[in-house]
Amino acid sequence: SRTHRIAVVPGDGIGKETVPEGLRVLDAAARRFGFDLQLDHYDWSCETYAQTGRMMPEDGLDQLAKSDSIFLGAVGWPGVPDHISLWGLLIPIRRSFDQYISLRPCKLMPGTTSPLANRGPKDIDFYVVRENTEGEYSSSGGRMFPGTPREFVTQDSVFTRHGVDRVMKYAFELAQTRPRKKVTSATKSNGITFTMPYWDERFAEMAKNYPGITTDQFHIDILCAHFVQHPDWFDVVVGSNLFGDILSDLGPAVAGSIGIAPSANINPEKVYPSMFEPVHGSAPDIAGKFICNPIGQIWSGAMMLEHLGEKDAADAILRAIETHLAEGGPRTRDLGGQAGTEDVGRALAEAV
Amino acid sequence: SRTHRIAVVPGDGIGKETVPEGLRVLDAAARRFGFDLQLDHYDWSCETYAQTGRMMPEDGLDQLAKSDSIFLGAVGWPGVPDHISLWGLLIPIRRSFDQYISLRPCKLMPGTTSPLANRGPKDIDFYVVRENTEGEYSSSGGRMFPGTPREFVTQDSVFTRHGVDRVMKYAFELAQTRPRKKVTSATKSNGITFTMPYWDERFAEMAKNYPGITTDQFHIDILCAHFVQHPDWFDVVVGSNLFGDILSDLGPAVAGSIGIAPSANINPEKVYPSMFEPVHGSAPDIAGKFICNPIGQIWSGAMMLEHLGEKDAADAILRAIETHLAEGGPRTRDLGGQAGTEDVGRALAEAV
Ligand SMILES: CC(C)[C@H](C(=O)O)[C@@H](O)C(=O)O
Ligand SMILES: CC(C)[C@H](C(=O)O)[C@@H](O)C(=O)O
Repeated sequence: SRTHRIAVVPGDGIGKETVPEGLRVLDAAARRFGFDLQLDHYDWSCETYAQTGRMMPEDGLDQLAKSDSIFLGAVGWPGVPDHISLWGLLIPIRRSFDQYISLRPCKLMPGTTSPLANRGPKDIDFYVVRENTEGEYSSSGGRMFPGTPREFVTQDSVFTRHGVDRVMKYAFELAQTRPRKKVTSATKSNGITFTMPYWDERFAEMAKNYPGITTDQFHIDILCAHFVQHPDWFDVVVGSNLFGDILSDLGPAVAGSIGIAPSANINPEKVYPSMFEPVHGSAPDIAGKFICNPIGQIWSGAMMLEHLGEKDAADAILRAIETHLAEGGPRTRDLGGQAGTEDVGRALAEAV
Repeated sequence: SRTHRIAVVPGDGIGKETVPEGLRVLDAAARRFGFDLQLDHYDWSCETYAQTGRMMPEDGLDQLAKSDSIFLGAVGWPGVPDHISLWGLLIPIRRSFDQYISLRPCKLMPGTTSPLANRGPKDIDFYVVRENTEGEYSSSGGRMFPGTPREFVTQDSVFTRHGVDRVMKYAFELAQTRPRKKVTSATKSNGITFTMPYWDERFAEMAKNYPGITTDQFHIDILCAHFVQHPDWFDVVVGSNLFGDILSDLGPAVAGSIGIAPSANINPEKVYPSMFEPVHGSAPDIAGKFICNPIGQIWSGAMMLEHLGEKDAADAILRAIETHLAEGGPRTRDLGGQAGTEDVGRALAEAV
């Protein structure tokens, strides 16, 4: 039978609590749909850093490279600065494995509530596709006249044809698979007058290859406003590294799903492993109590299975989550219940 | 008696309809509070561009420089690209007159509704202070290898100590005048690793001068989410040119006030005139029908009077707007009424 090799990295804080539940549900799906998961466990985290001075071993990326996918919990802990924890683990994985797509569903789930008034599941159901390797997150920049009144700092945004075209292609291909077949581009070409007009140019060019897809574009300022005022307008939204980052937090926030939303860092060509992680962080305030919600992790597992070609298994997990939320399965505190992390994981594994 | 010289630029579309109502209310305030307004009218717009090939005459900025403040309607019209309309009128005014603060109140007004569920006027009442001259809106950048697969485009973000410190100072001074005395900084230093850590550094430095002010900071992605989930957390929010732009559209959107919100482009030292304009644009779809809402323009007039030192008059206008909205004065369609633009302007002039 089919075997998928998964690198498991629980990371910090509640990542250690959600990942086991994610694995529980993945295991149930594997048994039901007849495939095998070969798990390699890595205990890399801010604790590892405290002990070894590194977030992962020197050959960490080589170890991960042997897997088909990476299943990540959360990275980051108070006292360890971002440039160590994130730039020592999360960012190198995204970059070395050319995970140039960050994909996040923004979906109001039945049985949960959006912070927006009068919105139901039909109104909020779209994807944010974010460029994940270049753009505003560049490594080119510097400081002049340090410590003087003339001091200034610059940072280049870098948009390559290679980088822009491939994320747009992904967004259009994704829209092809959806009933509404629409792509919205996030721009700011009225203010940021070199890179953003180029982004618009490539978007218009790519749209020509997809005559069946409806397109529109908004400047990022009013687009954020529209996420709040008209979330029902959107189907697939494509943005640069920074704009995609903003929209893929705002989208789950308007959907009320920031605590349960999944995300995928994808290398679509499967030359390298892709990485799947919940949107939430390591949550130091509730870590160690086993009261956190594992649904973001479990939903990330469904995205992983879809990427690995196990579409039926992925659908089964997603349906289990939807039914669970709609029909009042055990809930953790963030959703107004009393259940523990494991109660939710077990219920979902059973449902699958 | 005191005289203020105002350059009046209605601009395009509904700007031509809202500015007269703004002036009507300003005139009422001048009579009641005993000052004079000397108005210079400028009909610069996209029509001017069609006739003369320029949005404003060559010495346009010199003409405006004689005024104490600029009262602007809206700029932009279909068929005239942004790099002509905005970069030929709005942006040169902001830059030449060193209007380095863009200030926007985000306030849920009594009698209006937020798109957020269960939020009342007490929950949403903060200011966004945006840097308005540098940062991500730079004129440094370019394209290499055009038309080839190797093509790429870059744009520098430029943060100077001069530019960063003065906007932060303004934000802290503003917070001093407010009951909650809190400043939130918008950053992204975990991803944008040259300019944003510098921003954080200067913020921490400035905070030392204001021991009575509470501070916090959030990365822009989660900050946008918090605007939706916890708008009650905020008092004064300070951001770069781009982050401030995003937050000052998202803020009015969550307050439900995008149609009525004002904005100020301020040169705090009053070396140059400041400019006051509603947040909304020229609204080609409803222009010419006199059904648009003039409250954004009138509220902008109140901000102008405050800047000119007419605090009592400014307060009187703001109170008139609040009472009008709370007590069911005539409403335009966007607020569910049937009234025309002039009905609202007259009612507010009378109330003042
Ligand atoms: C028109 C555009 C350049 C402008 C900006 O981003 O500065 C607008 O969005 C604004 O906020 O006034
Ligand atoms: C941690 C940070 C660098 C990261 C990003 O902005 O890419 C995070 O916000 C995310 O979206 O995964």
